[in-house]
Amino acid sequence: MHSNESTLPIAQRVHINTRQEPILFLREDSVVARSEGFNAMSRVKVAVEDRAIIATLVIVGPELLPEGHAGLSEIAWHLLALTEGQRIRLSHPAPVASLSFMRHKVYGHELNREQITAVISDIVAGRYMDVQIAAFITACADNRLSRQEMVNLTRAMVESGERLAWSGPRIVDKHCVGGLPGNRTTPVVVAIAAAAGLIMPKTSSRAITSPAGTADVMETLAPVELEIADLRRVVAREGGCVAWGGAANLSPADDILIRVEKALGIDSEGQLVASILSKKIAAGSTDVLIDIPVGPTAKIRSEQAAALLAQELAGVGAALGIKVQVEITDGRQPVGRGIGPALEARDVLAVLRNQPDAPEDLRERCLRLAGRLLELANASEPGKGYGDAREILDSGAARDKFYAICKAQGGMREPPVAPCRFHVLADRDGTVSSIDNRLVANVAKLAGAPVEKSAGLEFLVRLGQSVKRGEPLMIIHAASPGELEYAVSFQREHPEMIRFGDASGSLPDPEMTDPDQELAPTEPYTR
Amino acid sequence: MHSNESTLPIAQRVHINTRQEPILFLREDSVVARSEGFNAMSRVKVAVEDRAIIATLVIVGPELLPEGHAGLSEIAWHLLALTEGQRIRLSHPAPVASLSFMRHKVYGHELNREQITAVISDIVAGRYMDVQIAAFITACADNRLSRQEMVNLTRAMVESGERLAWSGPRIVDKHCVGGLPGNRTTPVVVAIAAAAGLIMPKTSSRAITSPAGTADVMETLAPVELEIADLRRVVAREGGCVAWGGAANLSPADDILIRVEKALGIDSEGQLVASILSKKIAAGSTDVLIDIPVGPTAKIRSEQAAALLAQELAGVGAALGIKVQVEITDGRQPVGRGIGPALEARDVLAVLRNQPDAPEDLRERCLRLAGRLLELANASEPGKGYGDAREILDSGAARDKFYAICKAQGGMREPPVAPCRFHVLADRDGTVSSIDNRLVANVAKLAGAPVEKSAGLEFLVRLGQSVKRGEPLMIIHAASPGELEYAVSFQREHPEMIRFGDASGSLPDPEMTDPDQELAPTEPYTR
Repeated sequence: MHSNESTLPIAQRVHINTRQEPILFLREDSVVARSEGFNAMSRVKVAVEDRAIIATLVIVGPELLPEGHAGLSEIAWHLLALTEGQRIRLSHPAPVASLSFMRHKVYGHELNREQITAVISDIVAGRYMDVQIAAFITACADNRLSRQEMVNLTRAMVESGERLAWSGPRIVDKHCVGGLPGNRTTPVVVAIAAAAGLIMPKTSSRAITSPAGTADVMETLAPVELEIADLRRVVAREGGCVAWGGAANLSPADDILIRVEKALGIDSEGQLVASILSKKIAAGSTDVLIDIPVGPTAKIRSEQAAALLAQELAGVGAALGIKVQVEITDGRQPVGRGIGPALEARDVLAVLRNQPDAPEDLRERCLRLAGRLLELANASEPGKGYGDAREILDSGAARDKFYAICKAQGGMREPPVAPCRFHVLADRDGTVSSIDNRLVANVAKLAGAPVEKSAGLEFLVRLGQSVKRGEPLMIIHAASPGELEYAVSFQREHPEMIRFGDASGSLPDPEMTDPDQELAPTEPYTR
Repeated sequence: MHSNESTLPIAQRVHINTRQEPILFLREDSVVARSEGFNAMSRVKVAVEDRAIIATLVIVGPELLPEGHAGLSEIAWHLLALTEGQRIRLSHPAPVASLSFMRHKVYGHELNREQITAVISDIVAGRYMDVQIAAFITACADNRLSRQEMVNLTRAMVESGERLAWSGPRIVDKHCVGGLPGNRTTPVVVAIAAAAGLIMPKTSSRAITSPAGTADVMETLAPVELEIADLRRVVAREGGCVAWGGAANLSPADDILIRVEKALGIDSEGQLVASILSKKIAAGSTDVLIDIPVGPTAKIRSEQAAALLAQELAGVGAALGIKVQVEITDGRQPVGRGIGPALEARDVLAVLRNQPDAPEDLRERCLRLAGRLLELANASEPGKGYGDAREILDSGAARDKFYAICKAQGGMREPPVAPCRFHVLADRDGTVSSIDNRLVANVAKLAGAPVEKSAGLEFLVRLGQSVKRGEPLMIIHAASPGELEYAVSFQREHPEMIRFGDASGSLPDPEMTDPDQELAPTEPYTR
């Protein structure tokens, strides 16, 4: 009865976006569901021609699907490369053998290279349910991964996708572990490194939970969705690029694990090391500098945790044949002025163009990181990197290189400007004593970043700065009045976002903050 | 903009069964999704009047929902008690505070009573995603729960639902940890205990992954879906009942945790103890006997593991004020003849009626368990329980009590008979040397059990039994020819289900078993 083609269900595309999780829809009166004994939320193997995936079954009422049809969510439809009307075969999936290795890890055993490779390759093939991925991540948390397991996990993640190879002997890269709004040093560092003759084929991600990823920012200045061939051409011509990494399928396991880790709020050291290094190794890097901002509302909250992470990054990198160095930086407050794709791009341009209004803190971080990178790659003498980087920036060589990279990527453009603004004013005199990075990022996201490229905020104050009542603290930018209002409401509800010490330097009681502080709109709804 | 009722989305019921996971459907062009910044798979708070749940957002194409509408899956619709056309409020859910306790546990810390209670109560309120539940379960596995944590987890699970109270000083109960097809002792034990004057308000589950749960079996003999008031009336009149526990909402946390544990294949000791005891304590039991079958394909595979489990069960039970004893039994092969609701019910009736063809092994297990229970509750002198139980059974008192219970539950009926049969015959002479319980259970499920009450199989051989080529090993029962064929195919593909030793007692090489062994259909398609 399984070989009779005409009784197989007909595939129907269901325009349902469930991210990476493939969903199969069957009617409650479906003959195949009954005869195969599938229940709601069963795992079902869906096959067509020589392609197969495992999907989660959702049972639907008869009004949602014609008789004899099986619905497939967007990701399932694409993974199977289906066309409307094709017949599909449904069956019980073979047991996933590597789940027993996942359970070994849950029960505290060390996994060997083959076992970790099997787990990662089954995860990438879509054979794990999200709950099973969650169990693997949990079992690896709390320092339960040995150094050797981290090495094997990183290697397995590299092997899970494509791997780029470059002709030069040294391929440099930089990465920031994240958590700091506005810390957009990459375009400047790439420009300086490439101007100095280094090869830096930088692939970046879009924002996952932040108001902007490097790819989102760069996209306001030039195309970033480059095919591998175009990426090679840009790098061959200019020595560097700032492209979106998604097209290259580098360490796809990482994207899947990150999605589940975010839901759990667990970002364990071993997973973080494997995540960062697998992307870098897959991108073909040999010398990698990692920026670890440390602060109470940054991702890494103590110097001690940063030092431990640095040690693991260097150790695992060395075991896999790449040189990794770490720069621990100040993560107590946002960097630059802009937060959001276009606003951060403006800061980047101001630094590259040596404009007098360029944010000094962003410029300084770019020079420190670029200097370290020049030294790491032996392009500068030890101790001379910072000075060399500054010369390249001040001379306009970095700016020219950046323009050339933009042109090679498809043409430079000006970042868009948001039509709606709102000035948040200080409701008192005082000295800025603390800034919550996460709340600041939330305001920018509620204003529409990163989907709306022009949305976000200009953050105008710094720790220790004295402000007078009525002076602007930030300017919120949005593409629509509704989004502006949403961001403003959130900002109003969170006066603890920016705290002020009084004359004596002590913090005001947040309960005492007037929730109806004056919020004067200026330049509203104008371009 | 949040207070304007007319802009709120209109709820639309979507007949989609996603078990316990509430799903919210919004169009990709939905204004509320954009203005609130919801993405695919976001967690969204859905509120109507004073009721609210947290649902997972699925983004759908415009052909699936009218503009201005929000779809809700079956469970979401029921949890919110919605009516068609009602407007709902969507917002970002407040952070779930107990997730930080979940993470404490992941990072190896012991949780106190308040913390465990917060986790369980948020899980029951639907505030956890499945991946977060998976992380909690994983963090508790591998003996990472202390005795005190097991006590607190059990108590929190009891407090998560209703709790029954009874007037008698002693309320007895029995439970089997499961994994053994046909081990249907409960109806007989309840009848003996109630006939002896004990109070035994037995609430049982339906099958989750097995071919039959006690409630499925009992339902072929009498109604089992009793309201609490009816349950009380039956017990007041007869001293016992055999009802489905689902209506009573006892330890609902257990049902949720079990669903995720099954997907993970992780059934840790601490969770098992909390699962069993929370159901018993919530049901108001004071004296509980637990049957632990031990065998290579049973749930518990060694005497040592059984002893450890027994110790934890007794210890946690004592801490929570109930007396728990354990009976370790032979779990190497199925019990009785029938596997599947109606076929097991026939075995139960044969034992109660003292029929000469009653399966001796089932009768023996019932008497042992009933005897232990009589002694545990001081209804029999120590050492006299088995004899007392046998007298109650042999005299017909247990049968009469069972009939009376069935009548009180709504009227006794005869179990249904399947129209389709298939006799599986031995393809050689030999002695049965091993039986795989899991494969046997699979055949019964593929034949349609437990959904088809009449489906399943009669299992005709025992370990050590000599069989001749052509003798029947089992008879498969199904409600339709298709299901029969499906079960027969599976049985054919798994000759290792029943292994034979040759004259010298050694096992045949499974590779040598003839896959085309003769399968003679008899009595096919007849009622």
